[in-house]
Amino acid sequence: MTINQPHVVILGGGFGGLYAAKALRRAPVRVTLIDRCNHHLFQPLLYEVATAALSPADIAAPIRTILSRQRNATVLLAQATSIDVNRRMVTLSDGEIGYDILMVATGATHSYFGNEQWAAEAPGLKSIEDATEIRRRFLLAFESAERETDPEARKIELTFIIVGGGPTGVELAGTMSELARRSIPRDFRSIDTKTARVILLEGGDRLLAAYPPDLSAKAKRSLERLGVEVRLSSRVTHIDASGVKIGEEHVAARNVFWAAGVQASALGRSLGVPVDRAGRVEVQADLSVPGHPEVFVIGDLAKVTDGRSGKEVPGIAPAAMQMGRHVARIISREAASGGGTSPAQRPPFRYIDKGMLATIGRAKAVGLILGVHVSGLIAWLTWALIHITYLIGFRNRLLVMLQWAWAYIIFRRGARLITGPVDLELTRSSEEKAKPESGAVPGKARG
Amino acid sequence: MTINQPHVVILGGGFGGLYAAKALRRAPVRVTLIDRCNHHLFQPLLYEVATAALSPADIAAPIRTILSRQRNATVLLAQATSIDVNRRMVTLSDGEIGYDILMVATGATHSYFGNEQWAAEAPGLKSIEDATEIRRRFLLAFESAERETDPEARKIELTFIIVGGGPTGVELAGTMSELARRSIPRDFRSIDTKTARVILLEGGDRLLAAYPPDLSAKAKRSLERLGVEVRLSSRVTHIDASGVKIGEEHVAARNVFWAAGVQASALGRSLGVPVDRAGRVEVQADLSVPGHPEVFVIGDLAKVTDGRSGKEVPGIAPAAMQMGRHVARIISREAASGGGTSPAQRPPFRYIDKGMLATIGRAKAVGLILGVHVSGLIAWLTWALIHITYLIGFRNRLLVMLQWAWAYIIFRRGARLITGPVDLELTRSSEEKAKPESGAVPGKARG
Repeated sequence: MTINQPHVVILGGGFGGLYAAKALRRAPVRVTLIDRCNHHLFQPLLYEVATAALSPADIAAPIRTILSRQRNATVLLAQATSIDVNRRMVTLSDGEIGYDILMVATGATHSYFGNEQWAAEAPGLKSIEDATEIRRRFLLAFESAERETDPEARKIELTFIIVGGGPTGVELAGTMSELARRSIPRDFRSIDTKTARVILLEGGDRLLAAYPPDLSAKAKRSLERLGVEVRLSSRVTHIDASGVKIGEEHVAARNVFWAAGVQASALGRSLGVPVDRAGRVEVQADLSVPGHPEVFVIGDLAKVTDGRSGKEVPGIAPAAMQMGRHVARIISREAASGGGTSPAQRPPFRYIDKGMLATIGRAKAVGLILGVHVSGLIAWLTWALIHITYLIGFRNRLLVMLQWAWAYIIFRRGARLITGPVDLELTRSSEEKAKPESGAVPGKARG
Repeated sequence: MTINQPHVVILGGGFGGLYAAKALRRAPVRVTLIDRCNHHLFQPLLYEVATAALSPADIAAPIRTILSRQRNATVLLAQATSIDVNRRMVTLSDGEIGYDILMVATGATHSYFGNEQWAAEAPGLKSIEDATEIRRRFLLAFESAERETDPEARKIELTFIIVGGGPTGVELAGTMSELARRSIPRDFRSIDTKTARVILLEGGDRLLAAYPPDLSAKAKRSLERLGVEVRLSSRVTHIDASGVKIGEEHVAARNVFWAAGVQASALGRSLGVPVDRAGRVEVQADLSVPGHPEVFVIGDLAKVTDGRSGKEVPGIAPAAMQMGRHVARIISREAASGGGTSPAQRPPFRYIDKGMLATIGRAKAVGLILGVHVSGLIAWLTWALIHITYLIGFRNRLLVMLQWAWAYIIFRRGARLITGPVDLELTRSSEEKAKPESGAVPGKARG
């Protein structure tokens, strides 16, 4: 590692950034990977944390540890706030850092389509903190319901609305319904947790819009069999503490979870190049940005159209990994040859579509694998196998597997912890708070 | 379960309360266990969460699940705020609940001896939230140090002070030093984590005051071999963001952790009976409070002198469990015979001292087992065996064991997650914030 080697800065330690850094391990470059979290997150399993089957540490590993043996890589915990492509500088919240080559891989977060005030009522699922917050709210609802004596208020406590019928919404709805119906009924005395309503709202006319229609239909049927109420063509117009509005209809619920919109990281806009409506950067065929061959955008932040299929590359982990490796190959080659090439001479990115899978509760899934439609147990087994294989760099891979298999087999979810503030008052509406509460506590009658 | 059965209310789901509830499973009573957390916490392993070897869910299990098969037990998530022994009512933050028999087992929390302003600078270790906060601060210090270029400021980042040489302080200091020296050196590029200073401050003239002096001396030697600086007779007089003061001496450190004082739960005072300076209730020989044979206090909240040995019963898990079972036996007997007895006729509580053990880093411990002084590997193996055996009601006991064994064997700590706010600014002093920061970022030089 010498000072003469080009300095490659990678922003973001997700699938795109991390795999790019790893793919540069033999390249004659200095790599600095910057992330505002200390951990790489295995996001496809985040819903398992939100529904208490896995612990945060099971699906997150310190980025430094993953890269500890890679001597040309440095990891910094920092928040990048903007990029100055002319000065070749990244501004951090507490300093700045220069680069020769930049890879922006800061991904996407959830979007409320301009209704940011919904965020407090309807948390989304992107980070470990999001997952433990959803877990906290979901589990607290049963605790509140157990102490609620008014049947109407109890029903509202036990109604969970999930907005958005993409993979995250489908996976959350399936596992939540299953948890209420199979894992916890015996733990409660006053309520029947099997009566909990899990409602999945989708604005479009089918679930899993990125999948073929027959799989969307199968996913809907499977969810319904698990007790989920699936409502299609139901666009949410308002969310507050009392529930959601779908047009003029009001659905009362204490808890709403958001799995609908995605908004690309704001860093993309600071590059000064065209972005689409979701904030994604319109990259060139080699994944560099127009006018700056030394700046690449990969992963969910990039809007990429595959040259062969003419289709847009989906915002999923395998695509981000492929992009990361593609850019790493370009950088390696150019660093080895000692000079830059024009973007037109570089190989264009080709997306290899291995397929995609979404799980629906325990032991069911739907997916496309190399173009073949799969569903049911076979699809789930494939999903499990792939996820286990990809839990790479996680030294406790085997333990996670065991824990997970255990949770599936015995229908128990071991990580049912409520952490953070447990303010029961917060979970009750103002109307209820106004009435005398002494009757609301079971066991109040003197024996 | 009929309405005529006496209603036993247990406040607190720690070792005392939980084991009392379990011991009442065949008694003709209705049991309501109230806790403000949804989980029972295996507190003796809490330092393993604070030092990233275990995940919160590994040492905490939902109280409802532990008691799910016990049909005479109901679990409520609620915060008890006071007790009215005359009306036989417990006031909750959002209601009240009546009892025929009450067991107060709300334990103790850390005390800053009237310096509550120290709490923000020097977090203590009592809850899961405390543990993840300590873990966050501890891990963030290395991240900050990695980006710090001023050698003096870097030293301060890498100085950790632990106040209090009891078991918690000894265990924290040993594991923190070991983590810095053995687990993470390879993960960092700019700093040598082996240079981190872990300073253990004890006000008295030896560590582990409850243990015999020879074991205190052994603990000190073992800690020093792990690189901990042990300072005895060092009473902290001031704590702020710059470090601590010991008399007139100032020791600069970014992070201070508190393992010194213990204060009994405030609920004890609301009973209207005598409490000692630490707020512990002075119970009678049968563990009931004077004048109220239907009210018992157990665990860390009770000040109990053992009738045979004349010694005070220590505030440790086995003692709390024994007290819980003792009171459960009294209640069972009186409920079965259909009437109360006067406290004088009840059997007095007898503490069976099986011993105590404190670990010092990996594979070392000191302890007293049935009066025999043990230390070194033998003591540690005994400690491990006992803790594994007592991880009762935790369905993933085997997995925890594996995970833990793994961490011990390979010196890696799998749960090295920084969750919650990562405000790097917060970890820097105001002086540093004032100076231009651009130079503080390694890799800043354009290659």
